[in-house]
Amino acid sequence: MSTAALDYARQHQQRFLSELKELLRIPSVSTLPDHRNDVRRAADFVAAEMKRIGLENVEVISVIPGGHPLVYGDWLNAAGKPTVLCYGHYDVQPPDPLDEWKSPPFDPTERNQNIYARGAVDDKGQMYMHLKAVESLMKTGNGKLPLNVRLVIEGEEEVGGESIAKFVREQPRRLAADLALVSDTEMFAAETPSLCVGLRGMCYTELEATGAMVDLHSGVYGGAAPNPLEALARIISKLKDENGKILIPGFYDRVEKPSADELKAWDSLPFNEEHYRQTEVGSKVLTGEPGYSVLYRTWARPTLEVHGMPGGFVAAGAKTVIPARASAKVSMRLVPDQRPEEIWRLFNEYVQKIVPKGIEIKIKQWSMADPIVVRTDNHFVRAAAQAMHDVFKKDTVYIRSGGSIPIVADFEKSLKIPSVMMGFGLPDDNLHAPNEKFHIPNFYRGIESIIRFFHILGN
Amino acid sequence: MSTAALDYARQHQQRFLSELKELLRIPSVSTLPDHRNDVRRAADFVAAEMKRIGLENVEVISVIPGGHPLVYGDWLNAAGKPTVLCYGHYDVQPPDPLDEWKSPPFDPTERNQNIYARGAVDDKGQMYMHLKAVESLMKTGNGKLPLNVRLVIEGEEEVGGESIAKFVREQPRRLAADLALVSDTEMFAAETPSLCVGLRGMCYTELEATGAMVDLHSGVYGGAAPNPLEALARIISKLKDENGKILIPGFYDRVEKPSADELKAWDSLPFNEEHYRQTEVGSKVLTGEPGYSVLYRTWARPTLEVHGMPGGFVAAGAKTVIPARASAKVSMRLVPDQRPEEIWRLFNEYVQKIVPKGIEIKIKQWSMADPIVVRTDNHFVRAAAQAMHDVFKKDTVYIRSGGSIPIVADFEKSLKIPSVMMGFGLPDDNLHAPNEKFHIPNFYRGIESIIRFFHILGN
Repeated sequence: MSTAALDYARQHQQRFLSELKELLRIPSVSTLPDHRNDVRRAADFVAAEMKRIGLENVEVISVIPGGHPLVYGDWLNAAGKPTVLCYGHYDVQPPDPLDEWKSPPFDPTERNQNIYARGAVDDKGQMYMHLKAVESLMKTGNGKLPLNVRLVIEGEEEVGGESIAKFVREQPRRLAADLALVSDTEMFAAETPSLCVGLRGMCYTELEATGAMVDLHSGVYGGAAPNPLEALARIISKLKDENGKILIPGFYDRVEKPSADELKAWDSLPFNEEHYRQTEVGSKVLTGEPGYSVLYRTWARPTLEVHGMPGGFVAAGAKTVIPARASAKVSMRLVPDQRPEEIWRLFNEYVQKIVPKGIEIKIKQWSMADPIVVRTDNHFVRAAAQAMHDVFKKDTVYIRSGGSIPIVADFEKSLKIPSVMMGFGLPDDNLHAPNEKFHIPNFYRGIESIIRFFHILGN
Repeated sequence: MSTAALDYARQHQQRFLSELKELLRIPSVSTLPDHRNDVRRAADFVAAEMKRIGLENVEVISVIPGGHPLVYGDWLNAAGKPTVLCYGHYDVQPPDPLDEWKSPPFDPTERNQNIYARGAVDDKGQMYMHLKAVESLMKTGNGKLPLNVRLVIEGEEEVGGESIAKFVREQPRRLAADLALVSDTEMFAAETPSLCVGLRGMCYTELEATGAMVDLHSGVYGGAAPNPLEALARIISKLKDENGKILIPGFYDRVEKPSADELKAWDSLPFNEEHYRQTEVGSKVLTGEPGYSVLYRTWARPTLEVHGMPGGFVAAGAKTVIPARASAKVSMRLVPDQRPEEIWRLFNEYVQKIVPKGIEIKIKQWSMADPIVVRTDNHFVRAAAQAMHDVFKKDTVYIRSGGSIPIVADFEKSLKIPSVMMGFGLPDDNLHAPNEKFHIPNFYRGIESIIRFFHILGN
């Protein structure tokens, strides 16, 4: 292959990084209404960059009133060549708790070859690699690419991705492609090129509990009034047993065991449980279902977590209130062949059966995603493995992720295309947490891997 | 008795109310550091008013560095007459949740003969009655009172009252008196003059749980990392059973049963459980230990409540985080003869035994108070009952309160004096809750009751 695009990418590394920093400075937190304008600014930034590098039909598409827009651009002039749909997202998670950040979340800061900022790896940094790979190929190929590309960058990934799901479902022809390229996952370990071939699904809920009609004084009413926080605690303690087994009847009925080959491959990955506990988790012991390895538990077993319990008095100090209302954000990660809608129904039925007396529970649905597994003998997956091997000079490993990328299931269902999940994050990148980072060499190697991948596909 | 003071109080009702509104406009929230200056402003307001009405030795006393000051004033020129120590507090609870207030919490608003504001009844409105009774007597008695008074108004009642406790303990002679008058309780029902002769004690704690060293992504780490919120839910569900029985070993060992006479008197109080449920609590059913009446449960049985669970993601929306840390504010109301320090020890021992694996728990102590019971055959209690009877033209009933006023136990221990708890709040005054109010006729009747009480004691 010609190395012109790779050379270009190497020569412009510093500029690419500066541009990324500019994007990271925009606090495009999609779940917080106060940041609506910032989310829009990030969309406009991406659209402007698409135009600048030579993409065509660039458009900021508002799909749902009140939602955050998609940014679309394409270049479809490589007749007879495959079309790759590059997917990413420009929205980010909230940065709190703010006081745990060593540098401000929206003031990207370099330390030890990393760039620290909310969204650095999830997903602004990874999404931006696609743009910079396209730019490198375009600038060194007389304004041409070796294959056709469509880029669709969404702004609601962290809040359920309703707009892109609707767009994919209702206008599949505008995204017609042979495969999707998704860079929103991580490598198994540093220096270990990895392709993600499985994702957990999701059912994110909020249990809204109501007891009394107003907040009550716990002295005057303690002993007579129901307490929604106590009720939620009681419900949560019945959702899982102390070993992490989920107690919702029927919950495990469709859970499939990974193949013997896949389990064997996981066992040969460079993974040290004690190192993982110490360096990534940092807790006294790891938890989860006995009899399953950590990789099995986090990749191929369903789990249930509580994320926050709004209600009552949460500031510093003491307030003697029995809150009238409280809620609990509870999500379940699902594995093949669990179905989110069925789990949602089972969850609702079970919770309503265990509601403590005096309490009413309403259950809100925040987001849903199908679990997914991609076959490793797929042509595109093999090409991606080759491209990463050529950059990292090491064999690419096939892994799963415990996270959820709902759009991958949507691409499969509505566009009938497989997704190549080529990610360059690292396990200690603090995804969704304070001090999120992206390893800068991986940003550059990601761009080179995508250039090589496009070259292989276009040959 | 001369009615001059009563006439004066009636003639100046409107002005008294206007002055109270001015005090209610000061957001003296003692638990919130941002309101430190407001708390101080409220102290200065009270001190200025003490001076204006003719009290002597007025002083704003800072007892503990960083604490909120006491306001002291006295008039001790009635030789041979008893001395009453009037106690109240000028600090208030936080106003949140703000969006449930019909009028702003610090913009006192009149509706249906009530004045709505944070602190209206707890305790600015009630504390101010003492000042206005003293003013009425002084202005109509040639600058003299029928008895000796000391007023001590604290600014930390809502945060544990450390300063006044220390002051009482270390300088009892500066508060030497024959009895204390405390107006920080409520009447049993509208038009039912009531004296409170029992209070529950308190042990307010915060369980601080730590799991991982940083917040983690629930997709990537769900199934391996301990979840502090889940752990707290599990602990809370083991502190009490579903019937409200507290499961801490030894917790009930010192609990005393009220006398048969007292229980019989409670049964004859005008109390309708269904009306109470509908109009005060508003929940589907009432909760608490079976086999005990509502009054028994809230006045003479210990209880345990959860007030808030800070940690994780509590804003609107979905965030897939396993928080590194979370906490739960848990308090216990105690009854005679439970001892707060012993309960604190039993609570700690039990919690540490039931901590889920992977989690570390630290327990913070926010406040402690002894439970108390006052004898109804006390001379001062009888005088107070007479005074209220004369104002309301109805027999005074003896009740207990489920709340805690730690200072009453301190007065008994360090000053060796009984407290007369003459309160004019109503059960629907929304104490510690949105839309706190004080019934304006009770403000006026409270002033008259205190004038009559002082007359009886001074005769």
